[in-house]
Amino acid sequence: MKSTELESLIASVSTPKRATGQEVQAHLDSLTKPQGSLGALETMALRLAKILGDPPAKLARRTVCIMAGDHGVAEEGVSAFPSEVTAQMCLNYERSGAAINALAGIAGAQVVVVDVGVDGDLGDARGVVSRKVRRGTRNFVKEPAMTSNEVLEAIAVGVDMIADLRPDVIGLGEMGIGNTTSAAAITAMVTGKPVEFVTGPGTGVDGAGVSRKVQAVNAGLSRLGKWPAPLDVLAEVGGLEIAGMVGLILGGAKRGIPVIVDGYITGAAALLACEMCPAAKEYLFASHVSQEPGHAIQLEHLGLQAALHLEMRLGEGTGAALMFAILESAGAILRDMATFAEADVSGKTD
Amino acid sequence: MKSTELESLIASVSTPKRATGQEVQAHLDSLTKPQGSLGALETMALRLAKILGDPPAKLARRTVCIMAGDHGVAEEGVSAFPSEVTAQMCLNYERSGAAINALAGIAGAQVVVVDVGVDGDLGDARGVVSRKVRRGTRNFVKEPAMTSNEVLEAIAVGVDMIADLRPDVIGLGEMGIGNTTSAAAITAMVTGKPVEFVTGPGTGVDGAGVSRKVQAVNAGLSRLGKWPAPLDVLAEVGGLEIAGMVGLILGGAKRGIPVIVDGYITGAAALLACEMCPAAKEYLFASHVSQEPGHAIQLEHLGLQAALHLEMRLGEGTGAALMFAILESAGAILRDMATFAEADVSGKTD
Repeated sequence: MKSTELESLIASVSTPKRATGQEVQAHLDSLTKPQGSLGALETMALRLAKILGDPPAKLARRTVCIMAGDHGVAEEGVSAFPSEVTAQMCLNYERSGAAINALAGIAGAQVVVVDVGVDGDLGDARGVVSRKVRRGTRNFVKEPAMTSNEVLEAIAVGVDMIADLRPDVIGLGEMGIGNTTSAAAITAMVTGKPVEFVTGPGTGVDGAGVSRKVQAVNAGLSRLGKWPAPLDVLAEVGGLEIAGMVGLILGGAKRGIPVIVDGYITGAAALLACEMCPAAKEYLFASHVSQEPGHAIQLEHLGLQAALHLEMRLGEGTGAALMFAILESAGAILRDMATFAEADVSGKTD
Repeated sequence: MKSTELESLIASVSTPKRATGQEVQAHLDSLTKPQGSLGALETMALRLAKILGDPPAKLARRTVCIMAGDHGVAEEGVSAFPSEVTAQMCLNYERSGAAINALAGIAGAQVVVVDVGVDGDLGDARGVVSRKVRRGTRNFVKEPAMTSNEVLEAIAVGVDMIADLRPDVIGLGEMGIGNTTSAAAITAMVTGKPVEFVTGPGTGVDGAGVSRKVQAVNAGLSRLGKWPAPLDVLAEVGGLEIAGMVGLILGGAKRGIPVIVDGYITGAAALLACEMCPAAKEYLFASHVSQEPGHAIQLEHLGLQAALHLEMRLGEGTGAALMFAILESAGAILRDMATFAEADVSGKTD
């Protein structure tokens, strides 16, 4: 993907307007329930109707796309698990042994795994889409994680996946040992919050490990000016799978489908995608709020409200998988509920 | 139902032990994910396995049971809607026009409506189970809402429904204009919290309405001593549908099935059921935390953590319906995930 192609992709994303907020709100208020009593589910229904029309079509084709990539910064001792786990988990997804397989199964969603930058040979893993840009990023403590071309190539992978899969709704998923460190750098950069506020234990490092993460993030960010372009942030401290998810978001927004944000790494991708393309925000739905401390900060910055409070911190798209049915339920309100007039139910007395 | 029958029902509820906590925790910790990274979903899986065994069986037969009953206290102007809405909504459920129908449809759950005390004639509504104990409760500002026998009869309705329906999991639902006032009285009594803390706008009364609710609750509670028996609380300030849900909980716990708590009214039933039968608490799962201020107080008292934060305040079992898939997902972790050894994935480095 050339930078001009990315620019025209961004320009092609428009604010969703298949229904107006006023129309949908009037519809919601005519339904047999006290006005507003479905709370955030109504907000979700309203946003969904703007994207898909009122009533919104069913989200039949549900996909969790797991972008997988390794991180050079893992050599700084920032993760509780060795880098080889990224490749091992890709094979685990392929054999349906991971948490995301279990949860997507209940949600009726397909799981698609994309090797956008795993530092390992996945051999005959035919269930993994092979789009490796390079074997992991460079260690961003020492040098830029990626070149500009690698960033663009990884973004293109995500855009292509949306075009190939044509889902009705996409859940963001990721796997990459070391990627909470990259996400922390991105989050600090975009939100302006202190690095210490957005750096947490990830898969389970101790206090010393968190200190190493903070140091690594500071080292990476020291090469960036105060207001760097999103593509430069990705190149300096990003990840191949994070760039891939930026592509999923932009591709999803262009195609006019809802995009479900999962945990902290997907949130970092969402921050960058919305920096590049503010209109993309209208297509994003938050699923859960993670235990990772920076996740709530990301959601607040994005203006998104999480439906689920489960203290999860796994990634893979596990929170997104739980969200499909909730988003579908929001749509069902507009599709299936009777109005006060239709059901002959009395309204409020005042 | 005689009081001795209720006593033996209560005695028959045992702490779930189809798997031990240690066994299930060891299983969870062997699975391919950082330990504890699925957060509250793991806690849910553990509790589910104690009830159903490890791995837990699928929750194939999902039922939302809506107990419907009217409240004499509605004549005090405590609701934004007239009492006739209770009967009208029962017909709306029967015709699948309500929010709970839409949400249960997505969840693959059946909706069963039980007239345990509607103050109206439901005519030829064959889809409504007719178990009317009386046409609404008495106005508890002036006199006890129910006699002891009426309370026992209404509890028996819930117990019978579990025996008749034989669900794999039951979601509590309710409809009854005026019932947040009854729930507030019960909640204040059981938790010891000031009436003002647990009395909210319900379906949408204004400040003056909330004041009338507080006055009504105080009047009702003035007839009760400091530590009344749960059955006396039900008789003085309860509701027929609330007693019916106490029966659903006790019947569900006896049968060894998970019981999903919905909003504020179902929480009041849960408080009373657990006062009568502390072991019943082990079968309860909280779905969402309602906008009604007393709901969080109930959940804290019960030691339950809500998965969903959606600012809902509708009742009907709408939150419970959203919870079926989440609970099923918790079970799927134990059913479907591979262990580190099975998947040949490396463990933590430390």
